[in-house]
Amino acid sequence: MVLTIYAPLFASSKRAVVTLVEKGVEFETVNVDLLKGEQRQPEYIAIQPFGKIPVLVDGDYKIFESRAIMRYIAEKYRSQGPDLLGKTIEERGQVEQWLDVEATSYHPPLLALTLNIVFAPLMGLPADEKVIKESEEKLAEVLDVYEAQLSKNEYLAGDFVSLADLAHLPFTEYLVGAIGKAYMIKDRKHVSAWWDKISNRAAWKEVSEKYALPV
Amino acid sequence: MVLTIYAPLFASSKRAVVTLVEKGVEFETVNVDLLKGEQRQPEYIAIQPFGKIPVLVDGDYKIFESRAIMRYIAEKYRSQGPDLLGKTIEERGQVEQWLDVEATSYHPPLLALTLNIVFAPLMGLPADEKVIKESEEKLAEVLDVYEAQLSKNEYLAGDFVSLADLAHLPFTEYLVGAIGKAYMIKDRKHVSAWWDKISNRAAWKEVSEKYALPV
Repeated sequence: MVLTIYAPLFASSKRAVVTLVEKGVEFETVNVDLLKGEQRQPEYIAIQPFGKIPVLVDGDYKIFESRAIMRYIAEKYRSQGPDLLGKTIEERGQVEQWLDVEATSYHPPLLALTLNIVFAPLMGLPADEKVIKESEEKLAEVLDVYEAQLSKNEYLAGDFVSLADLAHLPFTEYLVGAIGKAYMIKDRKHVSAWWDKISNRAAWKEVSEKYALPV
Repeated sequence: MVLTIYAPLFASSKRAVVTLVEKGVEFETVNVDLLKGEQRQPEYIAIQPFGKIPVLVDGDYKIFESRAIMRYIAEKYRSQGPDLLGKTIEERGQVEQWLDVEATSYHPPLLALTLNIVFAPLMGLPADEKVIKESEEKLAEVLDVYEAQLSKNEYLAGDFVSLADLAHLPFTEYLVGAIGKAYMIKDRKHVSAWWDKISNRAAWKEVSEKYALPV
Protein backbone atom coordinates (compact mmCIF):
# COMPACT_ATOMS: atom_id res chain seq x y z
CA MET A 1 0.00 0.00 0.00
CA VAL A 2 1.58 3.27 -1.12
CA LEU A 3 1.01 6.29 1.09
CA THR A 4 -0.44 9.45 -0.44
CA ILE A 5 0.38 13.01 0.57
CA TYR A 6 -1.92 15.87 -0.42
CA ALA A 7 -0.48 19.25 -1.43
CA PRO A 8 3.27 18.42 -1.50
CA LEU A 9 4.20 21.74 -3.15
CA PHE A 10 3.22 23.88 -0.16
CA ALA A 11 5.42 24.52 2.84
CA SER A 12 3.40 22.91 5.65
CA SER A 13 3.08 19.70 3.63
CA LYS A 14 6.84 19.52 3.20
CA ARG A 15 7.16 18.69 6.92
CA ALA A 16 5.41 15.42 6.11
CA VAL A 17 7.20 14.89 2.80
CA VAL A 18 10.70 15.32 4.23
CA THR A 19 9.85 12.86 7.02
CA LEU A 20 8.79 10.26 4.44
CA VAL A 21 12.02 10.80 2.48
CA GLU A 22 14.19 10.64 5.63
CA LYS A 23 12.55 7.32 6.52
CA GLY A 24 12.83 5.94 2.99
CA VAL A 25 9.07 5.42 2.67
CA GLU A 26 7.51 5.18 -0.78
CA PHE A 27 4.70 7.65 -1.40
CA GLU A 28 2.56 9.29 -4.05
CA THR A 29 1.44 12.90 -4.14
CA VAL A 30 -1.80 14.69 -5.02
CA ASN A 31 -1.60 18.38 -5.81
CA VAL A 32 -4.03 20.84 -4.20
CA ASP A 33 -3.69 24.40 -5.46
CA LEU A 34 -4.21 26.72 -2.48
CA LEU A 35 -3.84 29.78 -4.68
CA LYS A 36 -6.94 28.63 -6.60
CA GLY A 37 -8.81 27.72 -3.38
CA GLU A 38 -8.94 23.99 -4.15
CA GLN A 39 -8.64 23.27 -0.41
CA ARG A 40 -12.15 24.71 0.01
CA GLN A 41 -13.75 22.40 -2.57
CA PRO A 42 -16.24 19.84 -1.13
CA GLU A 43 -14.12 16.87 -2.30
CA TYR A 44 -11.17 18.17 -0.30
CA ILE A 45 -13.25 19.16 2.75
CA ALA A 46 -14.47 15.55 2.84
CA ILE A 47 -10.82 14.53 3.44
CA GLN A 48 -9.73 17.49 5.60
CA PRO A 49 -12.69 19.20 7.29
CA PHE A 50 -10.73 22.37 8.17
CA GLY A 51 -9.69 22.94 4.54
CA LYS A 52 -6.03 22.91 5.50
CA ILE A 53 -2.98 21.03 4.27
CA PRO A 54 -1.44 18.44 4.40
CA VAL A 55 -3.30 15.13 4.63
CA LEU A 56 -1.68 11.69 4.61
CA VAL A 57 -3.78 8.78 3.34
CA ASP A 58 -2.48 5.32 4.28
CA GLY A 59 -4.95 2.75 2.95
CA ASP A 60 -8.18 3.24 4.89
CA TYR A 61 -6.44 5.46 7.40
CA LYS A 62 -6.12 9.21 7.09
CA ILE A 63 -4.40 11.76 9.25
CA PHE A 64 -3.96 15.53 9.06
CA GLU A 65 -1.92 18.24 10.83
CA SER A 66 1.65 18.27 9.53
CA ARG A 67 3.36 17.55 12.85
CA ALA A 68 0.93 14.73 13.72
CA ILE A 69 1.72 13.17 10.33
CA MET A 70 5.45 13.48 11.07
CA ARG A 71 4.98 11.64 14.38
CA TYR A 72 2.86 8.93 12.75
CA ILE A 73 5.44 8.26 10.03
CA ALA A 74 8.35 8.32 12.52
CA GLU A 75 6.52 5.85 14.79
CA LYS A 76 5.23 3.51 12.06
CA TYR A 77 8.62 3.27 10.33
CA ARG A 78 10.67 3.46 13.52
CA SER A 79 12.89 0.54 12.48
CA GLN A 80 14.15 2.19 9.28
CA GLY A 81 16.25 5.34 8.77
CA PRO A 82 17.16 7.76 11.58
CA ASP A 83 15.13 7.49 14.82
CA LEU A 84 13.51 10.90 14.62
CA LEU A 85 11.67 10.56 17.96
CA GLY A 86 14.67 9.92 20.21
CA LYS A 87 15.42 6.57 21.84
CA THR A 88 13.98 7.04 25.35
CA ILE A 89 10.89 8.59 26.92
CA GLU A 90 13.10 11.46 28.10
CA GLU A 91 14.54 12.06 24.64
CA ARG A 92 11.10 11.92 23.09
CA GLY A 93 9.96 14.46 25.68
CA GLN A 94 12.59 16.89 24.41
CA VAL A 95 11.59 16.20 20.80
CA GLU A 96 7.96 16.92 21.68
CA GLN A 97 8.95 20.06 23.59
CA TRP A 98 10.81 21.57 20.63
CA LEU A 99 8.17 20.41 18.14
CA ASP A 100 5.63 22.32 20.22
CA VAL A 101 7.95 25.34 20.48
CA GLU A 102 8.14 25.32 16.67
CA ALA A 103 4.36 25.07 16.39
CA THR A 104 3.43 27.65 18.99
CA SER A 105 6.35 30.16 19.11
CA TYR A 106 8.49 29.88 15.96
CA HIS A 107 5.90 29.21 13.28
CA PRO A 108 3.25 31.91 14.00
CA PRO A 109 5.51 34.96 13.51
CA LEU A 110 7.32 33.28 10.59
CA LEU A 111 3.96 32.48 8.95
CA ALA A 112 2.94 36.12 9.36
CA LEU A 113 6.17 37.21 7.63
CA THR A 114 5.60 34.67 4.85
CA LEU A 115 2.01 35.79 4.25
CA ASN A 116 2.85 39.49 4.28
CA ILE A 117 6.14 39.45 2.40
CA VAL A 118 5.77 36.50 -0.01
CA PHE A 119 2.07 35.88 -0.55
CA ALA A 120 0.49 39.35 -0.24
CA PRO A 121 2.30 40.70 -3.35
CA LEU A 122 1.46 37.51 -5.29
CA MET A 123 -2.22 38.04 -4.54
CA GLY A 124 -2.20 41.81 -5.06
CA LEU A 125 -2.80 42.48 -1.35
CA PRO A 126 -1.10 45.14 0.77
CA ALA A 127 1.55 44.00 3.28
CA ASP A 128 0.93 44.98 6.91
CA GLU A 129 4.15 46.73 7.96
CA LYS A 130 3.19 46.73 11.65
CA VAL A 131 2.66 42.96 11.58
CA ILE A 132 5.96 42.50 9.74
CA LYS A 133 7.86 44.53 12.35
CA GLU A 134 6.24 42.81 15.35
CA SER A 135 6.66 39.35 13.81
CA GLU A 136 10.34 39.93 13.12
CA GLU A 137 10.84 41.02 16.74
CA LYS A 138 9.02 37.96 18.10
CA LEU A 139 10.97 35.62 15.83
CA ALA A 140 14.25 37.24 16.90
CA GLU A 141 13.43 36.52 20.56
CA VAL A 142 12.72 32.87 19.75
CA LEU A 143 15.94 32.60 17.75
CA ASP A 144 17.91 34.00 20.69
CA VAL A 145 16.67 31.07 22.79
CA TYR A 146 17.56 28.68 19.94
CA GLU A 147 21.06 30.16 19.83
CA ALA A 148 21.55 29.38 23.52
CA GLN A 149 20.09 25.87 23.14
CA LEU A 150 22.18 25.10 20.03
CA SER A 151 25.34 26.25 21.81
CA LYS A 152 24.77 23.33 24.21
CA ASN A 153 23.45 20.67 21.81
CA GLU A 154 24.06 19.91 18.17
CA TYR A 155 20.32 19.75 17.44
CA LEU A 156 17.30 21.22 19.20
CA ALA A 157 16.28 18.16 21.23
CA GLY A 158 19.83 16.97 21.94
CA ASP A 159 22.73 15.52 19.98
CA PHE A 160 20.47 13.71 17.50
CA VAL A 161 18.48 14.99 14.55
CA SER A 162 14.75 14.73 15.18
CA LEU A 163 11.29 15.76 14.00
CA ALA A 164 11.80 18.97 15.96
CA ASP A 165 14.59 20.04 13.60
CA LEU A 166 12.86 18.86 10.43
CA ALA A 167 9.66 20.74 11.31
CA HIS A 168 11.57 24.02 10.91
CA LEU A 169 12.77 23.35 7.35
CA PRO A 170 9.98 24.51 5.01
CA PHE A 171 9.28 27.94 6.46
CA THR A 172 12.91 28.69 7.36
CA GLU A 173 13.61 28.17 3.66
CA TYR A 174 11.23 31.10 3.06
CA LEU A 175 12.99 33.14 5.75
CA VAL A 176 16.45 32.77 4.18
CA GLY A 177 14.99 32.96 0.64
CA ALA A 178 11.88 34.78 -0.55
CA ILE A 179 11.38 36.70 2.72
CA GLY A 180 14.91 38.11 2.39
CA LYS A 181 15.84 37.92 6.07
CA ALA A 182 18.63 35.31 5.97
CA TYR A 183 20.60 37.47 8.42
CA MET A 184 18.25 36.36 11.21
CA ILE A 185 19.81 32.88 10.84
CA LYS A 186 23.31 33.83 9.64
CA ASP A 187 23.99 36.37 12.41
CA ARG A 188 23.51 33.69 15.08
CA LYS A 189 26.54 31.42 15.01
CA HIS A 190 24.99 28.24 16.39
CA VAL A 191 21.63 28.68 14.67
CA SER A 192 23.52 29.23 11.41
CA ALA A 193 25.58 26.04 11.83
CA TRP A 194 22.40 24.10 12.68
CA TRP A 195 20.60 25.48 9.64
CA ASP A 196 23.51 24.57 7.35
CA LYS A 197 23.46 21.05 8.74
CA ILE A 198 19.73 20.37 8.49
CA SER A 199 19.15 22.18 5.18
CA ASN A 200 22.00 20.25 3.55
CA ARG A 201 20.61 16.85 4.47
CA ALA A 202 20.01 14.76 1.35
CA ALA A 203 16.31 14.34 2.19
CA TRP A 204 15.66 18.07 2.40
CA LYS A 205 17.65 18.86 -0.75
CA GLU A 206 15.57 16.31 -2.62
CA VAL A 207 12.26 17.66 -1.25
CA SER A 208 13.22 21.28 -1.75
CA GLU A 209 14.16 20.69 -5.40
CA LYS A 210 11.47 18.19 -6.36
CA TYR A 211 8.49 19.96 -4.76
CA ALA A 212 9.37 23.61 -5.30
CA LEU A 213 6.37 25.95 -5.12
CA PRO A 214 5.67 26.92 -8.75
CA VAL A 215 5.74 30.71 -8.16
CA MET B 1 11.17 11.47 43.39
CA VAL B 2 8.14 13.77 43.41
CA LEU B 3 7.43 15.69 40.22
CA THR B 4 7.08 19.47 40.38
CA ILE B 5 4.79 21.61 38.23
CA TYR B 6 5.37 25.34 37.91
CA ALA B 7 2.43 27.75 37.79
CA PRO B 8 -0.49 25.35 38.50
CA LEU B 9 -2.99 28.19 38.93
CA PHE B 10 -2.86 29.30 35.31
CA ALA B 11 -4.82 27.73 32.50
CA SER B 12 -2.02 26.37 30.25
CA SER B 13 -0.44 24.65 33.26
CA LYS B 14 -3.68 22.89 34.05
CA ARG B 15 -3.24 20.75 30.92
CA ALA B 16 -0.23 19.20 32.68
CA VAL B 17 -1.87 19.12 36.13
CA VAL B 18 -5.01 17.31 34.95
CA THR B 19 -2.85 14.73 33.17
CA LEU B 20 -0.94 14.05 36.41
CA VAL B 21 -4.21 13.68 38.32
CA GLU B 22 -5.77 11.41 35.65
CA LYS B 23 -2.70 9.18 35.86
CA GLY B 24 -2.61 9.19 39.67
CA VAL B 25 0.91 10.64 39.80
CA GLU B 26 2.07 12.41 42.96
CA PHE B 27 3.34 15.95 42.38
CA GLU B 28 4.20 19.23 44.06
CA THR B 29 3.48 22.70 42.73
CA VAL B 30 5.40 25.97 42.63
CA ASN B 31 3.41 29.13 42.06
CA VAL B 32 4.54 31.68 39.47
CA ASP B 33 2.47 34.86 39.38
CA LEU B 34 2.12 35.90 35.76
CA LEU B 35 0.16 38.99 36.73
CA LYS B 36 3.24 40.20 38.64
CA GLY B 37 5.61 39.21 35.81
CA GLU B 38 7.39 36.52 37.83
CA GLN B 39 7.81 34.47 34.65
CA ARG B 40 10.25 37.10 33.42
CA GLN B 41 12.52 36.92 36.48
CA PRO B 42 16.03 35.50 35.84
CA GLU B 43 15.46 32.52 38.19
CA TYR B 44 12.44 31.48 36.13
CA ILE B 45 14.09 32.17 32.75
CA ALA B 46 16.85 29.78 33.83
CA ILE B 47 14.19 27.04 33.98
CA GLN B 48 12.04 28.15 31.04
CA PRO B 49 14.00 30.32 28.56
CA PHE B 50 10.88 31.65 26.81
CA GLY B 51 9.36 32.91 30.08
CA LYS B 52 6.24 30.83 29.51
CA ILE B 53 4.34 28.33 31.62
CA PRO B 54 4.20 25.47 32.56
CA VAL B 55 7.41 23.58 33.36
CA LEU B 56 7.60 20.04 34.76
CA VAL B 57 10.69 19.13 36.79
CA ASP B 58 11.26 15.39 37.27
CA GLY B 59 14.51 14.95 39.19
CA ASP B 60 17.30 16.18 36.90
CA TYR B 61 14.95 16.26 33.94
CA LYS B 62 12.89 19.24 32.93
CA ILE B 63 10.39 19.72 30.15
CA PHE B 64 8.20 22.62 29.04
CA GLU B 65 5.31 23.23 26.61
CA SER B 66 2.04 22.05 28.14
CA ARG B 67 1.19 19.47 25.47
CA ALA B 68 4.71 18.03 25.44
CA ILE B 69 4.45 17.61 29.22
CA MET B 70 1.10 15.85 28.77
CA ARG B 71 2.67 13.41 26.31
CA TYR B 72 5.66 12.80 28.58
CA ILE B 73 3.45 12.00 31.60
CA ALA B 74 1.10 9.80 29.54
CA GLU B 75 4.07 7.86 28.14
CA LYS B 76 6.05 7.55 31.39
CA TYR B 77 3.03 6.38 33.39
CA ARG B 78 1.44 4.43 30.56
CA SER B 79 0.75 1.40 32.77
CA GLN B 80 -1.43 3.28 35.27
CA GLY B 81 -4.77 5.04 34.83
CA PRO B 82 -6.46 5.54 31.43
CA ASP B 83 -4.26 5.13 28.33
CA LEU B 84 -4.44 8.71 27.14
CA LEU B 85 -2.36 8.12 24.00
CA GLY B 86 -4.50 5.40 22.40
CA LYS B 87 -3.45 1.76 22.15
CA THR B 88 -2.07 1.55 18.60
CA ILE B 89 0.07 3.69 16.30
CA GLU B 90 -3.09 4.55 14.38
CA GLU B 91 -4.98 5.61 17.52
CA ARG B 92 -2.03 7.64 18.69
CA GLY B 93 -1.97 9.31 15.26
CA GLN B 94 -5.54 10.49 15.82
CA VAL B 95 -4.68 11.71 19.33
CA GLU B 96 -1.74 13.67 17.92
CA GLN B 97 -3.92 15.04 15.12
CA TRP B 98 -6.53 16.46 17.50
CA LEU B 99 -3.90 17.65 19.98
CA ASP B 100 -2.37 19.64 17.13
CA VAL B 101 -5.80 20.90 16.03
CA GLU B 102 -6.30 22.15 19.60
CA ALA B 103 -2.89 23.84 19.61
CA THR B 104 -3.05 25.42 16.17
CA SER B 105 -6.76 26.03 15.44
CA TYR B 106 -8.81 25.94 18.66
CA HIS B 107 -6.47 27.55 21.15
CA PRO B 108 -5.34 30.72 19.28
CA PRO B 109 -8.81 32.30 18.85
CA LEU B 110 -9.87 31.15 22.33
CA LEU B 111 -6.71 32.64 23.84
CA ALA B 112 -7.47 35.92 22.05
CA LEU B 113 -10.99 35.90 23.57
CA THR B 114 -9.55 35.12 27.01
CA LEU B 115 -6.98 37.91 26.85
CA ASN B 116 -9.45 40.50 25.57
CA ILE B 117 -12.50 39.61 27.63
CA VAL B 118 -11.02 38.25 30.89
CA PHE B 119 -7.52 39.68 31.30
CA ALA B 120 -7.75 43.10 29.62
CA PRO B 121 -10.26 44.46 32.19
CA LEU B 122 -8.20 42.96 35.06
CA MET B 123 -5.16 44.84 33.84
CA GLY B 124 -7.00 48.06 32.97
CA LEU B 125 -6.43 47.56 29.24
CA PRO B 126 -8.98 48.18 26.46
CA ALA B 127 -10.53 45.13 24.78
CA ASP B 128 -10.09 44.91 21.00
CA GLU B 129 -13.65 44.44 19.70
CA LYS B 130 -12.46 43.57 16.17
CA VAL B 131 -10.23 40.80 17.53
CA ILE B 132 -13.10 39.53 19.71
CA LYS B 133 -15.46 39.35 16.73
CA GLU B 134 -12.95 37.66 14.41
CA SER B 135 -11.85 35.21 17.12
CA GLU B 136 -15.41 34.19 17.87
CA GLU B 137 -16.03 33.56 14.16
CA LYS B 138 -12.88 31.46 13.83
CA LEU B 139 -13.69 29.46 16.96
CA ALA B 140 -17.23 28.85 15.69
CA GLU B 141 -15.84 27.35 12.47
CA VAL B 142 -13.58 25.03 14.45
CA LEU B 143 -16.47 24.01 16.71
CA ASP B 144 -18.58 23.17 13.65
CA VAL B 145 -15.93 20.62 12.64
CA TYR B 146 -15.86 19.30 16.23
CA GLU B 147 -19.63 18.90 16.12
CA ALA B 148 -19.35 16.71 13.02
CA GLN B 149 -16.47 14.69 14.49
CA LEU B 150 -18.23 14.20 17.84
CA SER B 151 -21.38 13.03 16.07
CA LYS B 152 -19.30 10.07 14.81
CA ASN B 153 -17.12 9.40 17.89
CA GLU B 154 -17.62 9.80 21.60
CA TYR B 155 -14.33 11.68 21.99
CA LEU B 156 -12.20 13.66 19.55
CA ALA B 157 -9.70 10.93 18.68
CA GLY B 158 -12.19 8.04 18.75
CA ASP B 159 -14.23 6.22 21.36
CA PHE B 160 -11.63 6.70 24.11
CA VAL B 161 -10.75 9.73 26.20
CA SER B 162 -7.28 11.04 25.37
CA LEU B 163 -4.84 13.90 25.78
CA ALA B 164 -6.61 15.56 22.86
CA ASP B 165 -9.77 15.96 24.93
CA LEU B 166 -8.00 16.95 28.14
CA ALA B 167 -5.99 19.66 26.35
CA HIS B 168 -9.25 21.55 25.74
CA LEU B 169 -10.32 21.73 29.38
CA PRO B 170 -8.62 24.80 30.90
CA PHE B 171 -9.47 27.39 28.27
CA THR B 172 -12.93 25.98 27.49
CA GLU B 173 -13.65 26.55 31.18
CA TYR B 174 -13.00 30.23 30.47
CA LEU B 175 -15.24 30.10 27.41
CA VAL B 176 -18.25 28.74 29.31
CA GLY B 177 -17.38 30.83 32.40
CA ALA B 178 -15.62 34.20 32.58
CA ILE B 179 -15.78 34.81 28.81
CA GLY B 180 -19.56 34.40 28.93
CA LYS B 181 -19.95 32.50 25.66
CA ALA B 182 -21.18 29.13 26.95
CA TYR B 183 -23.69 29.08 24.08
CA MET B 184 -20.86 28.28 21.67
CA ILE B 185 -20.63 24.89 23.40
CA LYS B 186 -24.26 24.44 24.49
CA ASP B 187 -25.79 25.18 21.07
CA ARG B 188 -23.87 22.31 19.50
CA LYS B 189 -25.47 19.07 20.64
CA HIS B 190 -22.50 16.72 20.36
CA VAL B 191 -19.92 19.26 21.49
CA SER B 192 -22.13 19.99 24.49
CA ALA B 193 -22.41 16.30 25.44
CA TRP B 194 -18.64 15.92 25.05
CA TRP B 195 -18.00 18.97 27.21
CA ASP B 196 -20.32 17.68 29.94
CA LYS B 197 -18.51 14.36 29.91
CA ILE B 198 -14.94 15.65 30.05
CA SER B 199 -15.57 18.55 32.41
CA ASN B 200 -17.31 16.24 34.89
CA ARG B 201 -14.41 13.82 35.12
CA ALA B 202 -13.20 13.53 38.71
CA ALA B 203 -9.68 14.62 37.74
CA TRP B 204 -10.83 17.86 36.14
CA LYS B 205 -13.25 18.70 38.96
CA GLU B 206 -10.40 18.28 41.43
CA VAL B 207 -7.99 20.43 39.38
CA SER B 208 -10.57 23.08 38.63
CA GLU B 209 -11.47 23.48 42.32
CA LYS B 210 -8.02 23.07 43.85
CA TYR B 211 -6.09 25.32 41.47
CA ALA B 212 -8.60 28.06 40.74
CA LEU B 213 -7.05 31.28 39.46
CA PRO B 214 -7.22 33.71 42.39
CA VAL B 215 -8.94 36.52 40.52
